[in-house]
Amino acid sequence: GGVVETLFFPDAKLPCRNMKKPGGCRRKNCEYAHEPTSLTRFLDYLGSATRTLDICVFTITNDDISDVVLNLHQKGVKVRIITDNDQSSTQGSDIAKFRAAGIPVRQDHSPAHMHHKFAIIDGRLLLNGSFNWTRQAVTGNNENVTVLSDLALIQAFQAQFNKLWSMFNT
Amino acid sequence: GGVVETLFFPDAKLPCRNMKKPGGCRRKNCEYAHEPTSLTRFLDYLGSATRTLDICVFTITNDDISDVVLNLHQKGVKVRIITDNDQSSTQGSDIAKFRAAGIPVRQDHSPAHMHHKFAIIDGRLLLNGSFNWTRQAVTGNNENVTVLSDLALIQAFQAQFNKLWSMFNT
Ligand SMILES: [Zn+2]
Ligand SMILES: [Zn+2]
Repeated sequence: GGVVETLFFPDAKLPCRNMKKPGGCRRKNCEYAHEPTSLTRFLDYLGSATRTLDICVFTITNDDISDVVLNLHQKGVKVRIITDNDQSSTQGSDIAKFRAAGIPVRQDHSPAHMHHKFAIIDGRLLLNGSFNWTRQAVTGNNENVTVLSDLALIQAFQAQFNKLWSMFNT
Repeated sequence: GGVVETLFFPDAKLPCRNMKKPGGCRRKNCEYAHEPTSLTRFLDYLGSATRTLDICVFTITNDDISDVVLNLHQKGVKVRIITDNDQSSTQGSDIAKFRAAGIPVRQDHSPAHMHHKFAIIDGRLLLNGSFNWTRQAVTGNNENVTVLSDLALIQAFQAQFNKLWSMFNT
């Protein structure tokens, strides 16, 4: 009850983007993953959002992840993002892309870190753990993301999200 | 079922160490916390270990936490620690203290990070989240630690711990 599963990283390979195309990947000796990985399962959970997606993550620089978030926004899912200012200016941060697309983003401008790494999907699933949304965290680091459906837990994280959303500026 | 509670940080104050003494704290205008905080509750969970404590945490530099770990070791609890090599050499790391006390410590010596922040208490409780065991994470950062009792989840994290323990060296 309440715990759906845990995804552990690192993945051996990044997912092959050709797998999204009709007919899949036809490259010989393609070095990317054609089977499910922890990242593809993570992306499947994110992509299952139909109404709301509240993201509260220290660093977001992984394009596979930001593509899913941008796609959800374009489909009408209400996305909100809280992140840390020290990270949003680092090379490859996807924050500028989110803002350009019209997704509201708020940041912790204090010297301390907004160090959470959680997301709430439709108020029905919580993703939480050590996993920053970066490429290094996928294929380099030892990381975890636990997928939880416990409603009291989700309410506690939603209250925390709402508190930080009110506290932080754009 | 399976979720005990979530501790959110930052705490407004570090806990007053005089509260452990008979009679408590008698300092006038003491600037430390005399009431329970997220950290004191975290320490209470850690301190409840009676048989085993498996720690898998990126950075450990908080003396309030390491004092509890050292005390458990001295009382005969079997403590094992996995951490990241990049962090164990930083100023204030408590790894040298753990080793000097005889606690087995293993490290990820790769350029990637052993980025987990979890602990398993007696095989019955899992502490997991964004929280590194540092002073900044207690009174500065926005952080979470979720306390979980789901047995399947604990088994998944125990298997991950055992895998990393075999993979890493002292
Ligand atoms: Zn391919
Ligand atoms: Zn005091």
